[in-house]
Amino acid sequence: MSQPILQPIGIVHCDITSREDAPKNYDISDRKGVLEIYPAFQDGLQGIAAGHTIVVLFWLDRSDRTRLLVYPRGDRSRGLHGVFATRSPDRPNPIALSEVRILAIRNNCLEVVGLDVLDGTPIIDIKKKITPEDRPTA
Amino acid sequence: MSQPILQPIGIVHCDITSREDAPKNYDISDRKGVLEIYPAFQDGLQGIAAGHTIVVLFWLDRSDRTRLLVYPRGDRSRGLHGVFATRSPDRPNPIALSEVRILAIRNNCLEVVGLDVLDGTPIIDIKKKITPEDRPTA
Repeated sequence: MSQPILQPIGIVHCDITSREDAPKNYDISDRKGVLEIYPAFQDGLQGIAAGHTIVVLFWLDRSDRTRLLVYPRGDRSRGLHGVFATRSPDRPNPIALSEVRILAIRNNCLEVVGLDVLDGTPIIDIKKKITPEDRPTA
Repeated sequence: MSQPILQPIGIVHCDITSREDAPKNYDISDRKGVLEIYPAFQDGLQGIAAGHTIVVLFWLDRSDRTRLLVYPRGDRSRGLHGVFATRSPDRPNPIALSEVRILAIRNNCLEVVGLDVLDGTPIIDIKKKITPEDRPTA
């Protein structure tokens, strides 16, 4: 059985340096940056190409892991919500899930648009986005 | 800075007991089961209700973390792909991402449909699904 200890596969480089400056979600972000994948994991990128939208998991290393209740997007008028009913970066396992579009690939670096995480955030996984074309035909 | 060590927030109970029997993705699954959230994390569920579709992250504790190249869905005719270009359960950080629909909630247990993971798999996060209604209006 795998111990639940993550190994970063890369790191984000972008100009988002404070939580206040970060877009509230990837779907409203036009922020560009680079996903640097460490050479030990570069073979895992085979088949990924410019133009693809990919799912990226990040480890939010500056989050508060003790919070279970938050005001969604900091809006106190909405009342407290359980973190699992939100996309708050504060949660017991602070993993962020974003969809970004690849603009260009240079060796182990993916230039992307749609970032909503801080510069220097560890990358822990990349996945193919599921599209209707993935469903088996009858 | 948070060390990248995960703490399971719960466990899945379902009748999927082998990888061969598991649906290839949540979007083609009609398998039901229960997400048992441990009492220490139950407050984080506030605001989640029956009828919601939620995003669930699982720790695939029986995966191979050393593989970087796989045949997608085991189909050798498609050739080897980098794991990051697929949804293979084998990957350096074996986290699965599923969307499931909540049928009922009883205390700390969520009865759901759409499972594609093995019975006994640790749950590591639950997130709100982003919908078009989440985008700010002009």
